[in-house]
Amino acid sequence: MNETICAVATKVGGAIAVIRISGPESISITDKVFRGTKNRKLADAKAYTVNYGHIIDKTEEEIDDVLVTVFRAPHSYTGEDSIEISCHGSEYIVKCIIQILIDAGCHQAEPGEYTRRAYLNGKMDLSQAEAVADLIASTNRATHKLALSQLKGHFSSELSVLRNQLLKITSLLELELDFSDHEELEFADRSELKALAQKIDERISTLAHSFVTGNAIKQGIPVAIIGKTNVGKSTLLNRLLHEDKAIVSDIHGTTRDVIEDTTQINGITFRFIDTAGIRQTDDTIEQLGIQRSYQKLEEATIVLWLLDSQPSAEEINDMNTRCQGKRVIVVQNKIDKGEQPLNIASSSLEPSASKEAPTLPLQATIIRLSAKLGTGINELCKALYKAADIPEISENSVIVTSARHYEALTCAQTSIQRVIEGMDSELPGDLIAEDLRICLDELGEITGGQITPQETLNNIFKHFCVGK
Amino acid sequence: MNETICAVATKVGGAIAVIRISGPESISITDKVFRGTKNRKLADAKAYTVNYGHIIDKTEEEIDDVLVTVFRAPHSYTGEDSIEISCHGSEYIVKCIIQILIDAGCHQAEPGEYTRRAYLNGKMDLSQAEAVADLIASTNRATHKLALSQLKGHFSSELSVLRNQLLKITSLLELELDFSDHEELEFADRSELKALAQKIDERISTLAHSFVTGNAIKQGIPVAIIGKTNVGKSTLLNRLLHEDKAIVSDIHGTTRDVIEDTTQINGITFRFIDTAGIRQTDDTIEQLGIQRSYQKLEEATIVLWLLDSQPSAEEINDMNTRCQGKRVIVVQNKIDKGEQPLNIASSSLEPSASKEAPTLPLQATIIRLSAKLGTGINELCKALYKAADIPEISENSVIVTSARHYEALTCAQTSIQRVIEGMDSELPGDLIAEDLRICLDELGEITGGQITPQETLNNIFKHFCVGK
Repeated sequence: MNETICAVATKVGGAIAVIRISGPESISITDKVFRGTKNRKLADAKAYTVNYGHIIDKTEEEIDDVLVTVFRAPHSYTGEDSIEISCHGSEYIVKCIIQILIDAGCHQAEPGEYTRRAYLNGKMDLSQAEAVADLIASTNRATHKLALSQLKGHFSSELSVLRNQLLKITSLLELELDFSDHEELEFADRSELKALAQKIDERISTLAHSFVTGNAIKQGIPVAIIGKTNVGKSTLLNRLLHEDKAIVSDIHGTTRDVIEDTTQINGITFRFIDTAGIRQTDDTIEQLGIQRSYQKLEEATIVLWLLDSQPSAEEINDMNTRCQGKRVIVVQNKIDKGEQPLNIASSSLEPSASKEAPTLPLQATIIRLSAKLGTGINELCKALYKAADIPEISENSVIVTSARHYEALTCAQTSIQRVIEGMDSELPGDLIAEDLRICLDELGEITGGQITPQETLNNIFKHFCVGK
Repeated sequence: MNETICAVATKVGGAIAVIRISGPESISITDKVFRGTKNRKLADAKAYTVNYGHIIDKTEEEIDDVLVTVFRAPHSYTGEDSIEISCHGSEYIVKCIIQILIDAGCHQAEPGEYTRRAYLNGKMDLSQAEAVADLIASTNRATHKLALSQLKGHFSSELSVLRNQLLKITSLLELELDFSDHEELEFADRSELKALAQKIDERISTLAHSFVTGNAIKQGIPVAIIGKTNVGKSTLLNRLLHEDKAIVSDIHGTTRDVIEDTTQINGITFRFIDTAGIRQTDDTIEQLGIQRSYQKLEEATIVLWLLDSQPSAEEINDMNTRCQGKRVIVVQNKIDKGEQPLNIASSSLEPSASKEAPTLPLQATIIRLSAKLGTGINELCKALYKAADIPEISENSVIVTSARHYEALTCAQTSIQRVIEGMDSELPGDLIAEDLRICLDELGEITGGQITPQETLNNIFKHFCVGK
């Protein structure tokens, strides 16, 4: 923390790039290599001012025209004195300036080192620090809203409420212990304490359970498109991918770092799993491909079963077996060719299906469309969004998105349940207090504190990009 | 120019991104979507200050925490009121903010529109504007120095000197014309004017000629590695490419947007042209490949002829024919295997070669090395740099790097030479003055002015990135 660090904070290669410096010597080191207008020193510049000048190398040769912003501790992102140098976006120039700064006394920043310092300087707690990385990685409305909510501390406040309630129970129990020989003193009703513990248990359970949603939002909802060959899988996929309308028609200079086959529906990412066409075949290689299609189906939450004609009862039965626990959308493609509506008894959704329809328990929505013409694609998108079953997400939503948090919550839940059991079996107060402490510690791990081990911090920050 | 424009100025995907807004309504538009600490308005912020707050969408929902820098006309890059928004580097967030700005009244900026405005507002001339694009694209010391020198106006000053000299001749000639009936008046000596015109011609010629160097520096110097199969071409290429030591060991988050096979030697780019191995073969496909190798050799300025044993006189003769006008470096590879030095009479460089050596006029440097062990690679790099024949480049070097400038200089030279011829053949002053005007206009086109046609401007700025 005594070191002054530097790193490029933007991607390099645009019109401009920003280099960020943080630490006690930020200003004095930059002053060594910066020549401002009228020889003004950054040391004399006010905080939050932008200063024009140029960066020079050891031979006093000019490297670039720059704008330098000065931040003074504690009013900066890291809480330390900080500098931001805005230079031309050439990789060569950025390299030169970083090298000049290192020669002048800076250290190259590690991934996430700025945010780590912000955390260590008390500018944010650990879950907020993690939200910074999530915010930068956010690719749609849902991931963005969740990260922003976490960064704003909504999750932290929830945890703080829980911790205060736990502390209340603990202190009452401890009071009881301290004065256990003064039988005349009245203590809190055990059943009241138990009710509070149960409330805490419920809330922790809800939070832990929200990880299913949070994880689906973060990773994207896996959808397998499955069907026979030539049924129109690729055409449908292309249609769905083109639903991803860019907000601005054309932003040059942006790099799209996404997996090919994802689309956004109502701000949620759907991740399409490509599968080989399914058909009866003697070709060994093709059989392997079909086998793999069925395996990939396993990973999916939602299955799009694409058909262009009435499937046999056997096929429906087969799909029914394979799709247990999954949400199935049966898609009848090529309706432009005038095929009759499929005759599949989808228990709830097609009550009007004829009596001769295979009476299989397949729980499915049926969508009729033409992938070629685009007819019915909107209905499919709606069905996909409905099948994803994602709750409405607002700025204030508290949904757990981190496996680390989920793990801590699960452990905290085990402890609080032991507390409840302990109360039920009238265990001595000091044993119950022990479990309460564990629960408190587990919740405390999420937001971090003095006791957070280095290893945990290393694990968290190594996934950040350099410059953040 | 009355429109307020916005675009992302950095590449997107790093820790932070910067969005730039310029135009008369920059500040008022941003105030609509920005909520500063204590409700402070940007309209009340001083120029060159950084203001913390957040961007909100139409529903007043927060999109991101940002830092907003305020610039006021004419003290900004474009010369207009400008705003820079520093936000988190997520592509989704950047898209949202750009969309919010457009909804609030901004227009998406065209490529190079900021620099175009800077030019139109008299912040820089046209050659300086072009230097901005070159600076951003610079990948090594040489391209960087040339772009910076041009941006600083060294080329513009040279042109300004030339234009003043031309104007001096013109005005003297015009004075002569105005007073042509007052024979008693003394005018400048024609021979003196001619001497001045010749000086101008020489300087223009030097500038035009520097384009050979400037272009080589900008495009990279094409080097063909040619030789039989299995002679070690790939090993040598790998060695050479790994000479490209990054200045900083590891800058994460930078994208290298370079052609695969280039390396930097003393700050100059060498572009290696891959060629198929050459050998006698009956395979038609392979013959085609070899044919292509010889064709690619045509593009090269420097030829590395890689050998692992003594070539036949016929082979030397063949190479000699193919390499006319090129600089050849004969590289004897695999010296770790104890092969004897090659016996090739390279007229100047190997005077000690034995008398039996093929006495061919091949002008070549001979380098002995082991690509496998790395022995001799430094010597090869030195030989490559020497063969490139690039003059030392300083901050003040004036070397033409743009085909547009080269063309204008060539036309200017034609005119000034007509001026000299006119003087020689004692043409009337008004005809000579006409050529002088053409020469002036041609030089004027380089730096631009009121009369620069829209088409020229469009051509120049369309190659810029958006956001600059």
